[in-house]
This record gives sequence, C-alpha cells and structure tokens, in this order.
Amino acid sequence: MQERPFDLLNKVLGQQVLVRLKNNMSIRGKITSFDAHMNIVMESAEELDGGELKAKLGTILLRGGNIIFVSPA
Amino acid sequence: MQERPFDLLNKVLGQQVLVRLKNNMSIRGKITSFDAHMNIVMESAEELDGGELKAKLGTILLRGGNIIFVSPA
Amino acid sequence: MQERPFDLLNKVLGQQVLVRLKNNMSIRGKITSFDAHMNIVMESAEELDGGELKAKLGTILLRGGNIIFVSPA
Amino acid sequence: MQERPFDLLNKVLGQQVLVRLKNNMSIRGKITSFDAHMNIVMESAEELDGGELKAKLGTILLRGGNIIFVSPA
Amino acid sequence: MQERPFDLLNKVLGQQVLVRLKNNMSIRGKITSFDAHMNIVMESAEELDGGELKAKLGTILLRGGNIIFVSPA
Amino acid sequence: MQERPFDLLNKVLGQQVLVRLKNNMSIRGKITSFDAHMNIVMESAEELDGGELKAKLGTILLRGGNIIFVSPA
Amino acid sequence: MQERPFDLLNKVLGQQVLVRLKNNMSIRGKITSFDAHMNIVMESAEELDGGELKAKLGTILLRGGNIIFVSPA
Repeated sequence: MQERPFDLLNKVLGQQVLVRLKNNMSIRGKITSFDAHMNIVMESAEELDGGELKAKLGTILLRGGNIIFVSPA
Repeated sequence: MQERPFDLLNKVLGQQVLVRLKNNMSIRGKITSFDAHMNIVMESAEELDGGELKAKLGTILLRGGNIIFVSPA
Repeated sequence: MQERPFDLLNKVLGQQVLVRLKNNMSIRGKITSFDAHMNIVMESAEELDGGELKAKLGTILLRGGNIIFVSPA
Repeated sequence: MQERPFDLLNKVLGQQVLVRLKNNMSIRGKITSFDAHMNIVMESAEELDGGELKAKLGTILLRGGNIIFVSPA
Repeated sequence: MQERPFDLLNKVLGQQVLVRLKNNMSIRGKITSFDAHMNIVMESAEELDGGELKAKLGTILLRGGNIIFVSPA
Repeated sequence: MQERPFDLLNKVLGQQVLVRLKNNMSIRGKITSFDAHMNIVMESAEELDGGELKAKLGTILLRGGNIIFVSPA
Repeated sequence: MQERPFDLLNKVLGQQVLVRLKNNMSIRGKITSFDAHMNIVMESAEELDGGELKAKLGTILLRGGNIIFVSPA
C-alpha cells in the first residue's frame, strides 16, 4: 500500500522529534500522540535556539496549525 | 486504546496550565473546560512576561485558534 | 454534565465583559448576544488603552475571529 | 427567543453604520444587505481617518472576513 | 425578496469596478464573471496607485480571498 | 450559459500566464493543469522582478492559496 | 483524461524536489509521500539559502499549508 505522510508520525511515536514552528521556535521532545490536525503531544519538550537549549517546556500539547515540519531528531 | 492529544487536556482539567499564544502572550491559570476547537476556559488566569506576573486576567474564555501550545504548569 | 467553554458566555449575558483582540485592541461593554463563531454583540462598548477609556463605540457586532479572549469585567 | 448577533444587522438595514476593518480602515455608510459571512453592501460609503472624511467610496461590497466590528453610526 | 450582497456583482457585470485588495493594491477593470468565493475575472484591468495608472494588467482572474471591497467604478 | 471565473484558466491551458503571489513574487510560465483550489502546474516557469527574469524555476506545482491573480501573459 | 496538479507529485515520487515555503525557506530532498493537503514527507532534506546548503534536516514531514510551490529539483 502507498505510504502516507502521517505514517511517519506513527513510526516515531515514543521517540525524539524536532518540530519547527511558524514563529521560528524549534521544539525537541518525545512525541506520544498526534491527531489528523497534526496536533501533537510531546514529553520532556525543550525549546531550542540555534540548536542550544533555551527553555524546558515539559509536556506540551502543540496545535498542528503552527507547525512547519516535524523531523525525527 | 491509542492516546490522543486532547486526552492531555482532560487529564489536567481543574489544574494549572501554561498557555503560549501566537502573539507571544503566556497565560497561566486553572483550566476548567475546553472544546474540540481548543477553546479553553481558565480561572485565576495571569498574563506572564518572562515568567513574571504582568497582569491578572481572572476568568477568561480563550479562543483555541490563538494557541501555540498548552502545558501543565 | 461537563461544562463547555461557551457556557461562560451564557453566564455573563447582560453583564460587562472585557474582550482582547488580535490587533491589541481591548473592548469593554455589556454582552447581549453571541453565536457559535464567537461573534458577539456588546452594548455601551468602550475601547480601552492601558485600562483607560480611548473611545466610545456604542453598540457593536464584533466578529469572533478577531478575539483572543473574553473575560467577565 | 434568544437574540443572535446578526439580528443587529437586520435592525440597522437601511441605516448608517460604521465598520472597522483589520487593516485599520474605518468605513461609514448605509448598510443595504448582508449575508451569513458578514459580507455587507454599503451605499454612500466613506473612508474615515480619525473620524474625518478621507475618501468617498460610493457603493461597496465589503468582504466579511476583513471586518473587526460593525456599529450603528 | 431581500437583496443579498452578491446581487451587487450581478448588477455590475460587464461594467467597470474598482477592487481594493488586502495588500493595498487597487485594481480597476470590467468585471465579466464571479463565483461564490468572490473570485472575479476582470478585463482591461489596471493597477492604480493613488488613483493614477500604475500598470496595465489586461485580463485577470482575481482570487476572492484577497479582496477587501468591490465598488462600481 | 453564464461564464464562470475558472473558465479563464481552461481557455489558457497550454499558454503563457503571469501569476502574482501574496509574497510579491511574479511567476511567468505555461499553465498545464489546475484544480478547484486554484493549484496550478506551470512549465518553464520563471520568477520575475520588475518584469525582468530573476530565476528559472522549471516545472512547478503552485499552491492556489498563495495567488492574488492569474493573467494570460 | 485531463491532467491534474497533484499528478506532478505522483510523477516525482522518489525523486529530488525543491520546495519553497511561505517563510522564505527553500528545502530540497527526496519526496516519498504526500496527501491531499500537500503534506509531504521528504528524505535527506536540506535547507538551502541562496542555493547553498544551510542545514541538513534529514527526514521531515512538511505541512502543506506552508508551501508556495514544489518543483522537481
């Protein structure tokens, strides 16, 4: 069967991902769930700035509409 | 059953959350209800600036479309 | 029954609310009706700037899409 | 029956209204029709700047998505 | 029957209209068709700047989402 | 039968068009397909700046949501 | 049968594409899947700046809403 984009999120569930947002934020953390709007829950999430830790965010529910891309970290 | 992102909001109902908005506002308060659009009612809400209290907002109904992420505080 | 965010608007019908808009306007007035898009009619509405009266707007129909949050005043 | 926000537009049909737009334009004129998207036809419309006449627009069909609020003038 | 906003476009089909866009462009030309999204075809369209001709655009299909208002020219 | 805006795209299939985008880009090329969202495939597409060639883009699939207008070149 | 814009994505599956985003990012990589929202998975993705490599992104799931155009690289 043809692969679909959201299959990538299924494959990385429970793993570290890097998320780039429209407001230029980068967030790294463990993705534990997502839905069809690309809303994502991440645990141990960290805001990054130039690859360096800027702030610890803990567990977050991220609205999909803010996302540019998600990448396995 | 597979967990879904909005389950996080259910778990933290009645507890303190931190909400980051698209306009760079951060609001902390007790979440008392939400809906499928991520519209959220918060009680004893406070606007934060750099982690410090900027203004007391009291009870607010926040439109979900403004939210970047919600985090248990 | 579980409370829902729009219940807050029902509770405050006929009372003063403060509305914060995406363009940084704050409007205070008496909410007299609303719909599912959060379109709101306010009477004796006033535009505020830093908590001070900036302009009297009278009765207004406010489009919900502009709203960040609504708060009982 | 519960009043709804669009009832305000029905009440002011044929009367002067002031419309504030997202791009900071203010337009005053006689509203002659509207639809569920808040698209509005105004006659003898005038663009205002600080309450002063800036330009005569005549009859216009205004897209609802640009509107912040409509107010009986 | 109650008039509706799009009736204005029907009335001016084949005539000159002025269209103000969200990016501050003003376009004048003869409207020859439109649809429910306010997509509009204009012939002999001209971009205006301060009421003066800035560029000849010829026939254009204009996406409705860019429009602030349409006015019989 | 009443003409509709998308008929213009049908008429110019296989011909040169100029597309103005919301980010101020202008792209010229041969339109070879489109859909109801105004997504467009152009061949031999060129980015223009002030009417001059800025970059050769080759074949592109352009998302309709970025378009201000399409014009036969 | 009439060709449709998304056919271009089908043709280039498994090949290098260049994607221009609304935030001015350019990303080059191998497209391995897409859906009707133009969400795209790219492998060995690279962020480009003026045609030069700026950062290696690896595998990414790109939200379609950010895309201006996709081009076979």
